[in-house]
Amino acid sequence: MQGLACGLAHRGCSISRVGWYYGVMYRETILLEGHIIDSLILAKVLDTILMMGGTFDLSDVRIGATREEPSRAKIVVRAGSAGQLADILKAVQPHGATIEGEGDCALAPAPADGVFPDTFYATTHLPTQLRVKGRWIDVEAIEMDLGIRVDPEQGIAGAVPMNEVRRGELIVTGRGGVRVLPLERPRERDVFGFMESQVSAERPHGPIIVDIARRMRELRDGGGKVLLAGGPAIIHAGGREPLTWLIDSGYIHVLFCGNALAAHDIEAHLFGTSLGYRLSAGRPVPHGHEHHLRTINRIRALGGIRQAVESGLVTDGIMAACVRRGVHVVMAGTIRDDGPLPDTITDSVQAQAAMRSALPGVGLALLVASTLHAVATGNLLPATVPTVCVDVNPAVPTKLADRGSFQAVGLVMDAASFLRELARELGWKP
Amino acid sequence: MQGLACGLAHRGCSISRVGWYYGVMYRETILLEGHIIDSLILAKVLDTILMMGGTFDLSDVRIGATREEPSRAKIVVRAGSAGQLADILKAVQPHGATIEGEGDCALAPAPADGVFPDTFYATTHLPTQLRVKGRWIDVEAIEMDLGIRVDPEQGIAGAVPMNEVRRGELIVTGRGGVRVLPLERPRERDVFGFMESQVSAERPHGPIIVDIARRMRELRDGGGKVLLAGGPAIIHAGGREPLTWLIDSGYIHVLFCGNALAAHDIEAHLFGTSLGYRLSAGRPVPHGHEHHLRTINRIRALGGIRQAVESGLVTDGIMAACVRRGVHVVMAGTIRDDGPLPDTITDSVQAQAAMRSALPGVGLALLVASTLHAVATGNLLPATVPTVCVDVNPAVPTKLADRGSFQAVGLVMDAASFLRELARELGWKP
Amino acid sequence: MQGLACGLAHRGCSISRVGWYYGVMYRETILLEGHIIDSLILAKVLDTILMMGGTFDLSDVRIGATREEPSRAKIVVRAGSAGQLADILKAVQPHGATIEGEGDCALAPAPADGVFPDTFYATTHLPTQLRVKGRWIDVEAIEMDLGIRVDPEQGIAGAVPMNEVRRGELIVTGRGGVRVLPLERPRERDVFGFMESQVSAERPHGPIIVDIARRMRELRDGGGKVLLAGGPAIIHAGGREPLTWLIDSGYIHVLFCGNALAAHDIEAHLFGTSLGYRLSAGRPVPHGHEHHLRTINRIRALGGIRQAVESGLVTDGIMAACVRRGVHVVMAGTIRDDGPLPDTITDSVQAQAAMRSALPGVGLALLVASTLHAVATGNLLPATVPTVCVDVNPAVPTKLADRGSFQAVGLVMDAASFLRELARELGWKP
Amino acid sequence: MQGLACGLAHRGCSISRVGWYYGVMYRETILLEGHIIDSLILAKVLDTILMMGGTFDLSDVRIGATREEPSRAKIVVRAGSAGQLADILKAVQPHGATIEGEGDCALAPAPADGVFPDTFYATTHLPTQLRVKGRWIDVEAIEMDLGIRVDPEQGIAGAVPMNEVRRGELIVTGRGGVRVLPLERPRERDVFGFMESQVSAERPHGPIIVDIARRMRELRDGGGKVLLAGGPAIIHAGGREPLTWLIDSGYIHVLFCGNALAAHDIEAHLFGTSLGYRLSAGRPVPHGHEHHLRTINRIRALGGIRQAVESGLVTDGIMAACVRRGVHVVMAGTIRDDGPLPDTITDSVQAQAAMRSALPGVGLALLVASTLHAVATGNLLPATVPTVCVDVNPAVPTKLADRGSFQAVGLVMDAASFLRELARELGWKP
Repeated sequence: MQGLACGLAHRGCSISRVGWYYGVMYRETILLEGHIIDSLILAKVLDTILMMGGTFDLSDVRIGATREEPSRAKIVVRAGSAGQLADILKAVQPHGATIEGEGDCALAPAPADGVFPDTFYATTHLPTQLRVKGRWIDVEAIEMDLGIRVDPEQGIAGAVPMNEVRRGELIVTGRGGVRVLPLERPRERDVFGFMESQVSAERPHGPIIVDIARRMRELRDGGGKVLLAGGPAIIHAGGREPLTWLIDSGYIHVLFCGNALAAHDIEAHLFGTSLGYRLSAGRPVPHGHEHHLRTINRIRALGGIRQAVESGLVTDGIMAACVRRGVHVVMAGTIRDDGPLPDTITDSVQAQAAMRSALPGVGLALLVASTLHAVATGNLLPATVPTVCVDVNPAVPTKLADRGSFQAVGLVMDAASFLRELARELGWKP
Repeated sequence: MQGLACGLAHRGCSISRVGWYYGVMYRETILLEGHIIDSLILAKVLDTILMMGGTFDLSDVRIGATREEPSRAKIVVRAGSAGQLADILKAVQPHGATIEGEGDCALAPAPADGVFPDTFYATTHLPTQLRVKGRWIDVEAIEMDLGIRVDPEQGIAGAVPMNEVRRGELIVTGRGGVRVLPLERPRERDVFGFMESQVSAERPHGPIIVDIARRMRELRDGGGKVLLAGGPAIIHAGGREPLTWLIDSGYIHVLFCGNALAAHDIEAHLFGTSLGYRLSAGRPVPHGHEHHLRTINRIRALGGIRQAVESGLVTDGIMAACVRRGVHVVMAGTIRDDGPLPDTITDSVQAQAAMRSALPGVGLALLVASTLHAVATGNLLPATVPTVCVDVNPAVPTKLADRGSFQAVGLVMDAASFLRELARELGWKP
Repeated sequence: MQGLACGLAHRGCSISRVGWYYGVMYRETILLEGHIIDSLILAKVLDTILMMGGTFDLSDVRIGATREEPSRAKIVVRAGSAGQLADILKAVQPHGATIEGEGDCALAPAPADGVFPDTFYATTHLPTQLRVKGRWIDVEAIEMDLGIRVDPEQGIAGAVPMNEVRRGELIVTGRGGVRVLPLERPRERDVFGFMESQVSAERPHGPIIVDIARRMRELRDGGGKVLLAGGPAIIHAGGREPLTWLIDSGYIHVLFCGNALAAHDIEAHLFGTSLGYRLSAGRPVPHGHEHHLRTINRIRALGGIRQAVESGLVTDGIMAACVRRGVHVVMAGTIRDDGPLPDTITDSVQAQAAMRSALPGVGLALLVASTLHAVATGNLLPATVPTVCVDVNPAVPTKLADRGSFQAVGLVMDAASFLRELARELGWKP
Repeated sequence: MQGLACGLAHRGCSISRVGWYYGVMYRETILLEGHIIDSLILAKVLDTILMMGGTFDLSDVRIGATREEPSRAKIVVRAGSAGQLADILKAVQPHGATIEGEGDCALAPAPADGVFPDTFYATTHLPTQLRVKGRWIDVEAIEMDLGIRVDPEQGIAGAVPMNEVRRGELIVTGRGGVRVLPLERPRERDVFGFMESQVSAERPHGPIIVDIARRMRELRDGGGKVLLAGGPAIIHAGGREPLTWLIDSGYIHVLFCGNALAAHDIEAHLFGTSLGYRLSAGRPVPHGHEHHLRTINRIRALGGIRQAVESGLVTDGIMAACVRRGVHVVMAGTIRDDGPLPDTITDSVQAQAAMRSALPGVGLALLVASTLHAVATGNLLPATVPTVCVDVNPAVPTKLADRGSFQAVGLVMDAASFLRELARELGWKP
């Protein structure tokens, strides 16, 4: 104790000297609260301040005695200019730092439909609160890279995509009166309790898959939802059967995919091929891409996948299982699509909205073999949803981590092997 | 000559014996014409027949004396069943084999809007002709995986996407009366003259880039068009300046991209960052993703990219150069998009149609650092357009080759290095 | 027949004209024999001649009536200079072309130990014959990129590595009197019967693994050998148990690996970790790399792996199974090695020789998750040995194909998933 | 101050209670000193203690006022068993934690040549000190994964590879009396000042290359050394010219490579090809691998690379520049090698020793396009040497980071593009 007192006194001297020689120092007091030791937050904040050229005093630090008990720290930040101080405060805010004696958040009306005020606050995917009329309220439906729309009368705030804002709606601007709650590290000692920044093919997959399976069982039994966002490689490489089994066994509740996955799945049923590969033989069928087109054409003629299943044309596979089990399917279109199937939402903004509306209740996200769906889904998920990204290309989980989805677990393996091991772990007998 | 006579006589005997022992043989005579030796087509057709369990007689072979002079062969195909014979004929047809004494192509009306007749002929991306009323006519706007719509009165045929067909329009069905013209290997001894199936990082890039640059110069001088389809990694990794120079120098005439490339390009102008990386320093800016969102919001407020350029807000970079030089830009939306920018075509079917309409006149396609745009553009391009696919991930050019775009040249390198070397080759001084 | 006669007459004319205008034409008659239609060899040879600027007459062609019956062709090659003609003959020789009326192969003594005559003939990995004293003899132990040592008195020839030749030994020079027998496509309609040049993650693995398993069962039952060359990722990712089972069940007879695979395997036994990962939990053990070093140190203290197994220290895993089952293990050292284990052959030339001597009798090679071992083993294998290259990185099988091992089947999947599926297919119950 | 006092008092109480309820607690006091805030070390140590099930008291913390001034903390660690306490102390030791009132390090004689005592201390690549006879001494030639040999009489200690230890030499055992000095973050605000754990193709390369070039200029001017460890892709892809220029301009002082790079470099000089690719044309030369073999054979005949350069046979390229400029070249053999060239050290243990002896004075390591050399060199380098790992495959820099070389900067780009940009930055005019 004595030591820290001295240290800080010494710091204070040093900083005063700087101020004396070089003129006025700009200062602001910030507060950090929560699992700031355990999750390295205090260290990161101090580090950021120093890296950006500022200095600090630690004026009040209480460290929780157990992993569960929160800690708190009061930090006086000093900088050489108002701009530098603002930059530092902006940089530490996503770590949960709030400004002491902070007032209400600032609000400004949207200047036009689909346009935020110029200084709008851009969200992170962490739990976020606003100070409105002197009281902290939660921001609903938090998601990365949106604005926050506030109804101060009702005391309600929610994240809103840029294209959904309407002229005149009140949007949070600046950073004052906004606080971000850093994630508590999960209590379970499973794979999701580790923040691994590295993605590698050279890790044991087995135990990770065991953890995922355990969580899927818990979610199924507890009424939670599992989201799978997947690409067509699932079909090509041999993952259709285990995924069908997982759906039929009640382990998957939301499916995000594109036209291709659905079409290949049904092609496999109708023709036994996937984009020209005979699935039972592993060899190309001459001009086999035709089957893909004929499949789409037939489903278009019937009006859609549900109709194809109900008419008895499609009795087997992923899409049939989804229809049977009432899985919430969102199929988003892309410029690569043939057809597309009538169920495809070709407008990307509408598709995003449909994906967004399917997320409440999701307690686990499996992003399998689709860069597009992995990144798009990663953008929509709050940080509190455990996420697994599976791809044979290590760049995909890395990209997800780059994008801020830091709690994603990356598995470098092919989609089929992942789904087969996962389904076996849950009881599938191939 | 004597030898071949004997050989064929011998074959004939043998086949007769087979017929005699095992019952009736099914037979059909097919014709091959063109550069069938040079481009290995004859060998592939014979090989396919044997692989699929059939046998053949070569009854008439004329080999052109020079690389330019076409050859022709008449082949009697024999199979053990009608189904096997049909399968063989289907498999050899994309190599340009036509059935001797073939009649007109069969036509059937589309049963509904957006639906082809069930047995519709699915196109390749090779030049294709139809026999209509006894005469061979060209199929216009050929593209992979479409149907063919025919107006027999006018003697006109064109490839049509599934979703554009209207009820009652006449669509080609089956394979009879359709012939595909195999590609002649280009005369130039440049990189496009080689059909390399392998994609490797361990190839000298320099000479390939020299060939590409030469072709770009020829196209610019001759009034042809160069298409670039690119992803946002172009900006992140440092390719913005050379690409801007290429556009300003008149080397790029069509640009396919997404919301991200355009937004990052403008962010680089307004903030000096790209998705949070300070481009001049190579290090992350804290919470820098905000700049991306603010950029999009500002352009939305102004109404679009053209307005932003004309208002003087954006004076520099790829999009500004495109506006200045009248480049035909198609921006397609995806579910990953923030915003998006008002110029984005969010509907994937409309975006495909816009891309399609920008293709006439394109004499070279550069697909750079975007799996989605590379594959989507590869699908739309006729086989006659030389194509270069650049990606640091070798799976992307491989995927393109898998998809049938066999004339694509693959370069395993990062987007920025490619664009910098290409621009330097064309005169850029950084 | 008439047609071909005319065509060739025409060609002949044309070529004469060229000769007449531009001076003397250089010509040589070559012979092609074997499955030259089926395996595209005739087409490739004609193509190569044209591509290199030559012209040809097909003067005698006999086509086999069945896939089994060989064909033959006599081709008169013409070129504008002696150098061009030599280049063409050199280029077509690996396709099996021999020069008509060819004399004996030329021989020259090695000028020093470890040095070939300057114009030595460099081998392919295809079956090769020499004309010695008027008679064609087989080259034994053929392998890519070696020289051929001949004892003309005994009528014996064998491939010899550069570093093994001794001064004065007779080495084949030039190309005359050497013929390469192109591979016949395998009769089985399994995955090895297809020459696929493309490697892709988006292929169904299941049927390929079924074919591999079938072949392994045949080899085990028929007394053939299966070689596995593998890297340490086998252990990290969870492939240790299935591989141990495969060895214990008699499916693997030769193992090529490095110090790392063996050390990780034994570390897994002694400490339950692999390079610091606790295999049962999928998470890093603090400072766990120590276990790797302690493992190596203990085995060094005991004298080697066999001693460690026989002493009872190591009772489980890959290396223990190899000792128990008498698997022929070759461990080659690299500059990455810790230790290394005493069993490691640290000299790369000696290790190559040891690998070479383990190859006779091998009927299937599985190259799993090791670029170094995959390429090294690929270099040593004759083309007649079916080869499977498994790696999560598609560049590795591609590199193998680049190197000339064209019959390699590439599987883009992680080592553990491959070994688990393969072992399950053969009866493993995890 | 008051706050921290309370916080710690509270902790103390809580921990006592635990002890009181659950029995005896095991405790040890550790010290942390240095840049423990700035480099996140304090936070990581506290985190590790909690993660491993222990608790702690912070009994004395002094935080340096500036980035340069060191901080210190005294931490009382408590655990429920002696084993758990030992595990925790082992885990925090690499972060620089030393045990208060620690005695001398323990020593034991090596039981045999090439074998450490069973409980030997395994090194990290961080600066390390030993307490010998009451005094802290530096461990010389520190390197990852070795043992420490001590001469207590002379007060000298040095890291020693397992295979170099001789029976009876004194080796450090256990962890007592060993302290590791965590790295101070570099003062320069360049790319090496950031500890980036993620490797991504989507980063701006330009500024990173500028930083590398600046450091190379400083090292050249200040008498420091730059090490390049590279693979043959440097030649294949077009990096030979810029690398030759860099050597000739005095920017490279140590070269680690294999037989292949050297042979391809000389092949490029003698034949204009690299493994069968004509470098000036980007297309394969038929059977071009011969040139590789003939090159090696010729150099073998001459006795080595130096002789080939001095005889005038080789006048150009990387190896010629190395001979001319006196670059310290270490060529290590592998089982992939053809030949090999006489300069190759075929024994991997000897090659490692040669690489090790070339390291003193190296101030920057460039690991380019060679997984083997990158990892092997990464193992040998102390953590204080800034390292750049360049590979088109993102798995290679990731593997390096996995292995503990955490200060490595990863660049996902092809070797040729990297070397061309780097050489241009330093003044090369191609």
